[in-house]
Amino acid sequence: MSPGGNGPTTLAELGEFALIAELVRDLPASDEVLLGPGDDGAVLAVGGSVVVSTDVLVEGVHFRRDWSGPGDVGRKAVAVNVADIEAMGARPQGVVVGFSAPGDTEVRWVLDLARGLRTECAEAGVNLLGGDTTRAKEVTLSVTALGTLDGRAPVRRSGARPGDVLAYAGRLGWAAAGLLVLGRGFRSPRAVVDVQRVPVVPYGQGAVAARAGASSMVDVSDGLLADLGHVARASGVSIDVSTDAFEIPETLETVGAATRVDPILLVLTGGEDHALAATFPPGSVPEGWTTIGAVTEAAEGGPGVLVDSSSFAGVPGFDHFRPGARR
Amino acid sequence: MSPGGNGPTTLAELGEFALIAELVRDLPASDEVLLGPGDDGAVLAVGGSVVVSTDVLVEGVHFRRDWSGPGDVGRKAVAVNVADIEAMGARPQGVVVGFSAPGDTEVRWVLDLARGLRTECAEAGVNLLGGDTTRAKEVTLSVTALGTLDGRAPVRRSGARPGDVLAYAGRLGWAAAGLLVLGRGFRSPRAVVDVQRVPVVPYGQGAVAARAGASSMVDVSDGLLADLGHVARASGVSIDVSTDAFEIPETLETVGAATRVDPILLVLTGGEDHALAATFPPGSVPEGWTTIGAVTEAAEGGPGVLVDSSSFAGVPGFDHFRPGARR
Repeated sequence: MSPGGNGPTTLAELGEFALIAELVRDLPASDEVLLGPGDDGAVLAVGGSVVVSTDVLVEGVHFRRDWSGPGDVGRKAVAVNVADIEAMGARPQGVVVGFSAPGDTEVRWVLDLARGLRTECAEAGVNLLGGDTTRAKEVTLSVTALGTLDGRAPVRRSGARPGDVLAYAGRLGWAAAGLLVLGRGFRSPRAVVDVQRVPVVPYGQGAVAARAGASSMVDVSDGLLADLGHVARASGVSIDVSTDAFEIPETLETVGAATRVDPILLVLTGGEDHALAATFPPGSVPEGWTTIGAVTEAAEGGPGVLVDSSSFAGVPGFDHFRPGARR
Repeated sequence: MSPGGNGPTTLAELGEFALIAELVRDLPASDEVLLGPGDDGAVLAVGGSVVVSTDVLVEGVHFRRDWSGPGDVGRKAVAVNVADIEAMGARPQGVVVGFSAPGDTEVRWVLDLARGLRTECAEAGVNLLGGDTTRAKEVTLSVTALGTLDGRAPVRRSGARPGDVLAYAGRLGWAAAGLLVLGRGFRSPRAVVDVQRVPVVPYGQGAVAARAGASSMVDVSDGLLADLGHVARASGVSIDVSTDAFEIPETLETVGAATRVDPILLVLTGGEDHALAATFPPGSVPEGWTTIGAVTEAAEGGPGVLVDSSSFAGVPGFDHFRPGARR
């Protein structure tokens, strides 16, 4: 089937099985894929244990077709989920993808999305292991990612200890800045709009952090303060973020000036960047990571996140069922 | 939070994090769960390689809220996916669940669904490892199941050889019979309606078949002939199903008489039962399996499925994007 020719143009015309055949055609696979798509399940060689995480992306909630092309949607679906595997200190190995869409969805759109999935799998160094396609009223992508710890212990949210240093790798505030300008009808600065469409996950840095001895790690999906809040509560500590430690990129300064939003707010509370934030014993922050704070005993109000040693008054993150709610 | 009390009654009122806390409360886990829900990923001990499969269930396509209660929907979501792991000859170990629903969905409905997930996980002997919840316009469940081969090779679709014997375990035609009576406004016979709501997967029989030397295996999701068609084509053989070999259960006879549908058609083409169909070298069909046919060299028309040594004229199965299409 050639989507550019006189072939079927909608999913209903193409049919489920022809669609799947298109989606898995010439799929690359590493030696670790013992069995790829086409059977009831795929088989992946793992080192004794497997790390697994799943994410669902829904049209209108996690992406908008008028803001993101299909390739971006596919890339984002892989990126956000592989980031979770990285955040466990694991090496991402593979993903399976559940895809549902209306029957009148254009085949070309779906194939572009599939290309995006493959592109990001290549970026992340993971195998596309299989999936499921089905009809639905809205476009939904559910990605489950698998990875191996290569014999290491998982880096959990609960391991931060007083005296540890807080550091991050990746980008912070870029996706929120992109959302801000898109929401106001602009398409620039291009750099932040691109990151809103496809987060730039610091692939490989999860395992780097684990090898360096990270005591806790999380990927920043809801916002730095919100996600560090999970770490602080799970670890029973306070985490003090120093705003002075951030070098605000010029692009974020530009967006801040144009929208009258303090760019440090974007950095501290913006979600969807999927940077990695981790705590390390003093002196063990690996290269490529930026130190941005410290872990202390739980403050008087209990475990939580402080900004410049004070409690933060804003909204630290996002709740899917209560988009306006504070948490 | 007590859903029976004065607590929030909709997801929007409850919020994402309170929902997750409810969903994972007192979650049982086997020793193989090295890390359960609550972090970026879960960690599962596996024997060197992991079998993975994913399925998406969409309201209105795979279940109807007026036909199935939330507990049934939860159970079915686990059952259909674990059946895929069984069909690889693997031992199912765990599932992750992606759940999306509108904000006005009743919390009670979701908690009942979660109870159904747990019930079927217990039935199947698998661990609920984690998941993702998000807002959407329609209720969608995406389940990814993981299992271990315990050192065996996977039982693929491509291994059927001329001379092998075809056998199945589980039920065939029951779910289709249930759909048939529900579609005509009846709620009985209860036995088939129940199976339509929650398939009775022959848990454990996948590994039994693998240990017995099964040369190929598939779970019957689209219909016996349709799914055997995948096996026949992947193996380059013909598979000849003998209708005489089936003992039609009285319940299917009753439905057939009431609806004027030949019950053997339900058995041969009915989907959603998630029985296991496998081919075995002669003399090695394990106990609990029913022999229903034989594998031969590919017939003149090429690899495919025969019924009583003739080609089948009906519609062998279901296409999600073309519900009326023949394949």
